[in-house]
Amino acid sequence: MTDFAELNPPQRLLLGPGPSPVHPQVQRAMAAPSLGHLDPELLRLLSETSELLRYAFQTKNELTLAVSGTGMAGMECVLGNLIEPGDRLVVGVAGFFGARLAELAERMGARVRRVECEWGRDLGFDPLAAAIKEETPKAVAIVHAETSTGVLQPMDEIGELVHRYDSLLIVDCVTSLGGAPVTIDAWDADAAFSGSQKCLGCPSGLAPVTVSERFRNAVKKRTTPVHSFYLDLELLCRYWLGDHLYHHTISAPLVYALHEGLRLVKEEGLVDRWARHRSNAELLWNGLERLGLELHVPRVRRVPSLTTVRVPDGVDEAAVRVKLRDDYGIEIGAGLGPLKGKIWRIGLMGHGSQPANVALLLAALGQILGRD
Amino acid sequence: MTDFAELNPPQRLLLGPGPSPVHPQVQRAMAAPSLGHLDPELLRLLSETSELLRYAFQTKNELTLAVSGTGMAGMECVLGNLIEPGDRLVVGVAGFFGARLAELAERMGARVRRVECEWGRDLGFDPLAAAIKEETPKAVAIVHAETSTGVLQPMDEIGELVHRYDSLLIVDCVTSLGGAPVTIDAWDADAAFSGSQKCLGCPSGLAPVTVSERFRNAVKKRTTPVHSFYLDLELLCRYWLGDHLYHHTISAPLVYALHEGLRLVKEEGLVDRWARHRSNAELLWNGLERLGLELHVPRVRRVPSLTTVRVPDGVDEAAVRVKLRDDYGIEIGAGLGPLKGKIWRIGLMGHGSQPANVALLLAALGQILGRD
Repeated sequence: MTDFAELNPPQRLLLGPGPSPVHPQVQRAMAAPSLGHLDPELLRLLSETSELLRYAFQTKNELTLAVSGTGMAGMECVLGNLIEPGDRLVVGVAGFFGARLAELAERMGARVRRVECEWGRDLGFDPLAAAIKEETPKAVAIVHAETSTGVLQPMDEIGELVHRYDSLLIVDCVTSLGGAPVTIDAWDADAAFSGSQKCLGCPSGLAPVTVSERFRNAVKKRTTPVHSFYLDLELLCRYWLGDHLYHHTISAPLVYALHEGLRLVKEEGLVDRWARHRSNAELLWNGLERLGLELHVPRVRRVPSLTTVRVPDGVDEAAVRVKLRDDYGIEIGAGLGPLKGKIWRIGLMGHGSQPANVALLLAALGQILGRD
Repeated sequence: MTDFAELNPPQRLLLGPGPSPVHPQVQRAMAAPSLGHLDPELLRLLSETSELLRYAFQTKNELTLAVSGTGMAGMECVLGNLIEPGDRLVVGVAGFFGARLAELAERMGARVRRVECEWGRDLGFDPLAAAIKEETPKAVAIVHAETSTGVLQPMDEIGELVHRYDSLLIVDCVTSLGGAPVTIDAWDADAAFSGSQKCLGCPSGLAPVTVSERFRNAVKKRTTPVHSFYLDLELLCRYWLGDHLYHHTISAPLVYALHEGLRLVKEEGLVDRWARHRSNAELLWNGLERLGLELHVPRVRRVPSLTTVRVPDGVDEAAVRVKLRDDYGIEIGAGLGPLKGKIWRIGLMGHGSQPANVALLLAALGQILGRD
């Protein structure tokens, strides 16, 4: 059997597609004494976390909380509470995570119409509108910031379009929440989910979720129970915000982390935080171009927290990532699906969005590529 | 809006039904630098964690890992990977968590036959055998240590019984793993799940799961996909132990915690650890009896990590718990379901199983009840 040593993980600067660097104050918060999941003090923190999440999501939705899992659990939660076998869904597939939305919905028995586009573009209003008109689906699910391509989907008028057909709008905000303008009520979105390990500066493990009254009413009209007990939103809402009936043993250190991460979002202010992500992204974009590298997405559509760069011809993309990791202690991400081997993915998320990180990464990349 | 202060949770000695006190070395491990979910060093830790879990479960099952959620996610994972709508299940309901197993299975569309008994007794072999013979179910699910009653279910011959009818044996080991003899292969069990926050001395957030080849073969024979992507065991196995294909962003601090918690289990040795839980439980049992309190379960059936004590006539059970919490900083648990108001639940789990904790709790209880 292995001789298990006490763990001693290396220091890494996490500039990939997430997780992002944990904010030092979040790290400190996690070390606070653990509380039971029914302790009045923990329940108070849940209530505050819910209020802080409403601010981060820019929503008045009562049912705003975090499910005990990663962003993928958030996605599964939103889809699973709504979908019954046979339901029709329109899903925007502009990359890997749009494809995941479609796959999850199909596992749940939904009939899915995919609206597709090239990986590196946004969905476009007209193809979405045409599909929705044809399908009159129960819901339309799209990704706001597609982490696989670095494209930010414009949200203008999509809510109005969806509701014209009595459908519900579901938005994946995993990579945008806290790093780019997410405005659930202004979008008129009915459900959104995110992760804690991207622009909120926390470790992964809790997935923020918010749903509208319209969404809750649609769930009430189900003829079958929600398949998942663990992710049943009304039970979770009762535990978080109602009479606190025991549901599951929420992880105190993860609650502390999310509470502190969101408190820091509030302290910085969303507008300033979005601007910081934007200005550091521009520093990065300009620097990459000065290195002679080509960005995968037109500037007007770029996600500020996640930049995709094309791998130059003749360069071994994996070797560059390994060198960055082993010689410089920096993690960046590889491409997924059709973009595998073709792009790198660079995240400047949450506490990771800092000019010093941009400077170090550009310098390291320059050295490795011999372009300094 | 609330004026959100930096958090400062009170110190609590967690002697309830879980979470249990986090071991100081686990706490320290969580503060180690975060790694990405595809970092080779993190993947090495997952492989070691799997090996350590095999030791803790006493199994050779290849598919042994932890799902990214609490013990409830572990329960949902095991049931959800197996059950297709219409499947017949026999579920032992000797308390709240047996009832949960049945509820979850029914949500998934299973036809559930409940084998029930009084809350405070074990299921008994004959009623189980009769139900299995009658139903010839796809699987039989029982709780090893019923956290709501404090009863340890004898496991002798149940595996043989279940397999005689070509059925699969699923065991809930949430409160027993690491605190009482759990021997998956010797039991001939096909699936088991647990939580990190009980006798493993970690915070909650990861749920150990192990399944046999027989179980995996049954899953392969499904005619519908597993409903949950997030809890799909074959995908999780591929990420943890195969080619590490991206599945979800596992939480590095929770992995560090579980790895360290399990390393400490290995260091102490399972037999010594079981003996420690047993001897501290006996200290508690004897002390409670000296205080004139009545235990809810006959000694031979007691869970060493979770003791149920009857609330004496005329005593306000909630007031005692609040006084323990507010004046002594000690958390114990209330009764659930039919035992609400009738019992207290005292956990001596993982790092919490210490003579000093027993001494303090007995002294505090004696003072509060005026029996010192």
